[in-house]
Amino acid sequence: MKIGVIGLGLIGGSMAVDLRRRGFAESVAGVDNDPLHAEVARNIGLVDEVLSLDECCSTCDLIIVAVPADAACGVLSSVLDRIGDHQTVIDVCSTKEAICRVATAHSRRSRYVPTHPMAGTEYSGPWAAKENMFDGNAVILCDIEHSAEDAVAVVERLYDTLNMRSIHMHSAAHDVHVAHVSHISHISSFALALTVLDKERDEKHIFDLASGGFASTVRLAKSNKDMWRAIFTQNQENILTVLDNYIEKLHLFRTAIAESDNESVEGLITEANKIKRILK
Amino acid sequence: MKIGVIGLGLIGGSMAVDLRRRGFAESVAGVDNDPLHAEVARNIGLVDEVLSLDECCSTCDLIIVAVPADAACGVLSSVLDRIGDHQTVIDVCSTKEAICRVATAHSRRSRYVPTHPMAGTEYSGPWAAKENMFDGNAVILCDIEHSAEDAVAVVERLYDTLNMRSIHMHSAAHDVHVAHVSHISHISSFALALTVLDKERDEKHIFDLASGGFASTVRLAKSNKDMWRAIFTQNQENILTVLDNYIEKLHLFRTAIAESDNESVEGLITEANKIKRILK
Repeated sequence: MKIGVIGLGLIGGSMAVDLRRRGFAESVAGVDNDPLHAEVARNIGLVDEVLSLDECCSTCDLIIVAVPADAACGVLSSVLDRIGDHQTVIDVCSTKEAICRVATAHSRRSRYVPTHPMAGTEYSGPWAAKENMFDGNAVILCDIEHSAEDAVAVVERLYDTLNMRSIHMHSAAHDVHVAHVSHISHISSFALALTVLDKERDEKHIFDLASGGFASTVRLAKSNKDMWRAIFTQNQENILTVLDNYIEKLHLFRTAIAESDNESVEGLITEANKIKRILK
Repeated sequence: MKIGVIGLGLIGGSMAVDLRRRGFAESVAGVDNDPLHAEVARNIGLVDEVLSLDECCSTCDLIIVAVPADAACGVLSSVLDRIGDHQTVIDVCSTKEAICRVATAHSRRSRYVPTHPMAGTEYSGPWAAKENMFDGNAVILCDIEHSAEDAVAVVERLYDTLNMRSIHMHSAAHDVHVAHVSHISHISSFALALTVLDKERDEKHIFDLASGGFASTVRLAKSNKDMWRAIFTQNQENILTVLDNYIEKLHLFRTAIAESDNESVEGLITEANKIKRILK
């Protein structure tokens, strides 16, 4: 089949390359607002050709919307306006409730399958795309009761090709979950970077001592601003709830440390250590 | 030479194993309050023999104090009380001002070299010790103007053997630096673990979606409570300052997200992205 990828960044580009390499797609067309991204994607072989949105919608069997979450709502509507009963469209956004709401009223809603492949790196753009990035990770399919069976079937085959295990979830539950296990990690990391970069203004060598622990907690602060601005907007309510809880936990540490309350400090760390049960 | 390691955990055990394997030490004696740790360390070959503190101080040329920062102050004093003019003692604590203060008045102060090898993992105990753990990382030597030249020389050879690059720093400056590039990362991680573990009480499957980004920001929450309680106590003032700055940055995100202020969100992320300059 021929697939179209709208948005040739880290996720779209990485899907394109594996889906063709592994034989799921005979050819891959790319669409990107940014002429540089489109040209790079074609030159490094992520896609076979670059098309307009109209051309993509009229020639591709399966269309992947891989633009930031805010833009994705509009792009999805445009695609649904243009496709027929035998075409399928998915999005790959990290927030699902807003885009599912946008699609609800559309007459072609059943051709759309909302998905969130849980994989990525802190880099962005077509140059960040890489092979085998999705292997072994989870993909969430949301609200599939509103999608046609044949559309869900082709999307499941697509994610099988990427070696991902499918989890079905309501879009609202999805957004609560990712606020906890992904979005808050990014805010924590952005804020940590800002804190230390601030200090660097008067302590030039502050980073001389940075080691592995620092790198691991701050890595996500390299993440793309367009992607994350959109996520923060679309998952605003859940993120604020988690962020408030997080700040509350930091205050528990603050109070215990300020009062030299060793028992409380130990209690908090012992409780946090239970994360060992989850993390390998 | 014969070296003695007091505290056979991750750091002490890992130093012991590399220093003997690489020929710096002909034999390594271990001292540990916990009989289980001592027995394990001998059984898995981290040390050649287990001694009492007195025996260690009377027979070893170089003594490494590798117990948590609070206990280290007392242990260092005991060691300085027992050693002669040709023996050397170092500590390896993550906080340096308090222990340097304790040593200041001691008549044998010049036999002590305060050090902080910047390496480790989130695991602890003799079973966490591993070969080659220090290679390529930095070690901080503090306030060396108070140490005898021959003592500094032997310690520099020791860290050369571990393939570490030495940085000299005042103990007070050291503590400010590590509050920023290590201690705050741990608090951030502990608090993140607590936030998500809390949520797990009513959302059993919250961790099903956890991916690489989450794991990387929460990894440090597995860290040892005794070590970190001691660090939080000894670096209290610096840590509270950084923690307050960190909470302030989180509030900047909170306000911008709550007010759907895209411009501010983008500004904050763009600023945080500058960490790319530092992190590979």
